[in-house]
Amino acid sequence: MGLTPVERAAHYAARSPHFAKVTSKHLAYFQSVLSKPCSTSQRKGNMLTDTEAVAPFNVDWMGQVQGATPAVLMPTCTTHVSEILKYCQAEKLAVVPQSGNTGLVYGSGPVHDELVLSTRLMNAAPVVSKNTMSVVAESGVVLQQCQEACAEEGLLFPLMMGSKGSAMIGGNVSTNAGGIHFARYGSMHSNVLGVELVTAKGDVLNMMSTLRKDNAGYDLKHLFIGSEGTLGVVIRTAIKLYPQPTSKQLAMFRLKDFESVLELYHLANSHLAECLSAFEVMDGESIATSPAKDVPYERTCKNDVFRLGKDFAAAYFCALVETNGGNEEHDFDKLSRFAEAAQARLGDKLSGGGQYEPILSQSAAQSEQLWALREGVPVHLASHGLIYKYDVSFPIDKFYSIVEHTREILYRQCKMNPDEVIVVGYGHFGDGNVHLNVVDLTRTHGDQLDAALYPAVYKYCAAHGGSISAEHGVGLQKRDYLHLSRTKEAIQLMVDLKTVMDPNGILNPYKVLPLE
Amino acid sequence: MGLTPVERAAHYAARSPHFAKVTSKHLAYFQSVLSKPCSTSQRKGNMLTDTEAVAPFNVDWMGQVQGATPAVLMPTCTTHVSEILKYCQAEKLAVVPQSGNTGLVYGSGPVHDELVLSTRLMNAAPVVSKNTMSVVAESGVVLQQCQEACAEEGLLFPLMMGSKGSAMIGGNVSTNAGGIHFARYGSMHSNVLGVELVTAKGDVLNMMSTLRKDNAGYDLKHLFIGSEGTLGVVIRTAIKLYPQPTSKQLAMFRLKDFESVLELYHLANSHLAECLSAFEVMDGESIATSPAKDVPYERTCKNDVFRLGKDFAAAYFCALVETNGGNEEHDFDKLSRFAEAAQARLGDKLSGGGQYEPILSQSAAQSEQLWALREGVPVHLASHGLIYKYDVSFPIDKFYSIVEHTREILYRQCKMNPDEVIVVGYGHFGDGNVHLNVVDLTRTHGDQLDAALYPAVYKYCAAHGGSISAEHGVGLQKRDYLHLSRTKEAIQLMVDLKTVMDPNGILNPYKVLPLE
Repeated sequence: MGLTPVERAAHYAARSPHFAKVTSKHLAYFQSVLSKPCSTSQRKGNMLTDTEAVAPFNVDWMGQVQGATPAVLMPTCTTHVSEILKYCQAEKLAVVPQSGNTGLVYGSGPVHDELVLSTRLMNAAPVVSKNTMSVVAESGVVLQQCQEACAEEGLLFPLMMGSKGSAMIGGNVSTNAGGIHFARYGSMHSNVLGVELVTAKGDVLNMMSTLRKDNAGYDLKHLFIGSEGTLGVVIRTAIKLYPQPTSKQLAMFRLKDFESVLELYHLANSHLAECLSAFEVMDGESIATSPAKDVPYERTCKNDVFRLGKDFAAAYFCALVETNGGNEEHDFDKLSRFAEAAQARLGDKLSGGGQYEPILSQSAAQSEQLWALREGVPVHLASHGLIYKYDVSFPIDKFYSIVEHTREILYRQCKMNPDEVIVVGYGHFGDGNVHLNVVDLTRTHGDQLDAALYPAVYKYCAAHGGSISAEHGVGLQKRDYLHLSRTKEAIQLMVDLKTVMDPNGILNPYKVLPLE
Repeated sequence: MGLTPVERAAHYAARSPHFAKVTSKHLAYFQSVLSKPCSTSQRKGNMLTDTEAVAPFNVDWMGQVQGATPAVLMPTCTTHVSEILKYCQAEKLAVVPQSGNTGLVYGSGPVHDELVLSTRLMNAAPVVSKNTMSVVAESGVVLQQCQEACAEEGLLFPLMMGSKGSAMIGGNVSTNAGGIHFARYGSMHSNVLGVELVTAKGDVLNMMSTLRKDNAGYDLKHLFIGSEGTLGVVIRTAIKLYPQPTSKQLAMFRLKDFESVLELYHLANSHLAECLSAFEVMDGESIATSPAKDVPYERTCKNDVFRLGKDFAAAYFCALVETNGGNEEHDFDKLSRFAEAAQARLGDKLSGGGQYEPILSQSAAQSEQLWALREGVPVHLASHGLIYKYDVSFPIDKFYSIVEHTREILYRQCKMNPDEVIVVGYGHFGDGNVHLNVVDLTRTHGDQLDAALYPAVYKYCAAHGGSISAEHGVGLQKRDYLHLSRTKEAIQLMVDLKTVMDPNGILNPYKVLPLE
């Protein structure tokens, strides 16, 4: 769509006449609430109304959708948020909660003139408890800051992802963030022990707890985890921690075809068992764009990149296999035996003729380099052209089929040129979470790609047991495709819950659920 | 309370006049629904109305609460359940879903004349997928049967508990069952991948999936997991599996005091790390009642049993530490180093003077014997007298304080005789899940115990960061104590959700939520 970010916002939804316009009376009220110091930290809140100051809060991370908020409200405590939301519910003022604003589905910014409720000032230092192996963090705490606070106490924070330097705990919880250690440590549904939040009606729900087992009534916290700020605003969260691994091992494998990736994964599960912590896969095309100089395999990729095989099979795959464990000797032994078993089982499917031997990382620096290759993929791809990103999931045996199907559509059906539009797949294999990326190298095929891929990609997911959103959520971007992954009855129940919990629909409107 | 099971039911709640009485017209309708064969298995459902046939469905496992259902409905498929619940909602007929009926909070039986909807005939063989590492099981499948089906494919079902031979998957999901491997593999919220269920309105919610990552809209399944059959009836569930451990190691330690248990636990976490699979604790009093002959420590317990220390500290504790891993050599090495570290750190707190050396199990038979000691505790205790069981949880450093507090109440405040009433604590230490058991050896102190312990025990939990229900749920038994563990606002939201999802309140009435 050749739309500006403002036009794109309007394209997703017209402003609902149901919401009131923010007036100076409203702003004066917010100012009076936020000027009261927080009862614990004594810190006052803040409100931004200056056009320049609010600008970064108006647009998403990718610069695709831009709203026009009249004010950014920056509370410092539960009381602030409760008073703000009670008032907004009564006055029918729309509000979008925002923490790190690193989301990829346009879920955390205003679409029109919603107020932004930023969690940034709720960022007291995280409190780590060694006894209960948990951390309590406010919603404005940056993920990396939280990870580091836990590491200082010898404990591991279970979430790790590329945006760690900007993403915040509130958003991580509200979007059920996944990341690279999901297969080992599980989702936010598995790791959140307790939460304090404010509902869309302004009620305080104090469900703080560091208990592991607690079956006293409906476990309401799960309703808010992953509901993308449409039902409530998370204030602080208690999250389960794990023993900090004292040994991290990393290996990289080059594989000839997808069947070998699947076989390698099953071997990894049986040989590495409890210490397997990540199994990431990239097709050769993903890493061909990398500017990395010293990464094995990479330099020869250029020759392979467009030599797609029969039915658009990838030229080859790279698998990055990580272990996290408590004993270096044991883990290295397991990894070595795994690599031997892989070579015995996969033969030349693995080695590709001798020059692509598996790499068992010999140092932290080498591991960092291999991880940088993986984490750099989305960045490098974006630098080559206009990027279309799809975050979808499949049963693992169908992980790569969406990439081949997309090539089929673009190259065969639409007769597009692989020199101008590249289609790559990479992602968290252990979770079936494939990141399908389409890069328009010439930046001229936008309309054609829109027509060819929406909703074809999502329809393919739905038809093959996949999900239209693996880890990024629905937001504005996938709202109109939700029905492909969820039944009519399930969506109706979501709408019923939203209605009972947010009668005026003020919290994060236009997002996630179908427009009326 | 010197009440009969029928009186006890009435004591918890009077029959609500809001519900219709079951008539022959209703029974004829149910018969017509259940006589239609299931579309997939072609199996017809069944209906029991004969007094003798329905008797076992009327009473809980402990024989404490007895209802009087007019009929047990035994559907074989989703369509049956949907038609039944649509009709019951329209006709205002109360229904209690029941699977294995092994619960301990009177949650799965009728209180008055509710219809019983038994899942027993929904018991097709579980379907295990090695590729997606998941199993799909119907609600009437017995837990052990499901475990065995997974083990045959080399995969581990994450739930393990004493009632495995009778408990069923539907109940496990609906009550968010915990068990002994909870600390390693997590709760049902962590392990359920997808579910098909029928809501209280009779709507079919097909949320079946074996995807690991799926953030498409609100994750509704969590609302049903642990809601004890008050919001819907689970038909089938897809559950995450793990690599079957090829190495299981077990060690037992005898410790002088609770502080040493806590220290041992932290040592276990750092030494055993990712292969730690259970850390169970029993006080000496718990195992003193065991008839086991060849279990170390046990024979000398008799002498210690009532020698409670200062402030009613236990005479000693036993810790059972299990590892599940993928390499026997590695795991045994880790366990040995852990045992050495424990001896070095804890000294005579651990060995108790030489005759109570840590035991590293040398064979599967010995491991089985040690586990039998732990699993036998509730059974042996019950055989000694009238038993009062409390399933509560605490932050782990307060795990044992509820046992000492209860002794304080009974022995010091109420001047009861430790020869007549014993108070013991055991449970899943890693989860903070303590099973407080009070045994009235003479079966004559019922009224005094009721007065002394209800609600004192639950109040103590609430005041010390604990939960009134760790893993058994709320049911009928803890309904009136829910407010001690949950805030007014949280309970109100539970009631709001129940109202919107079950307008006539027909599903599992009188349970979990406060009576109006």
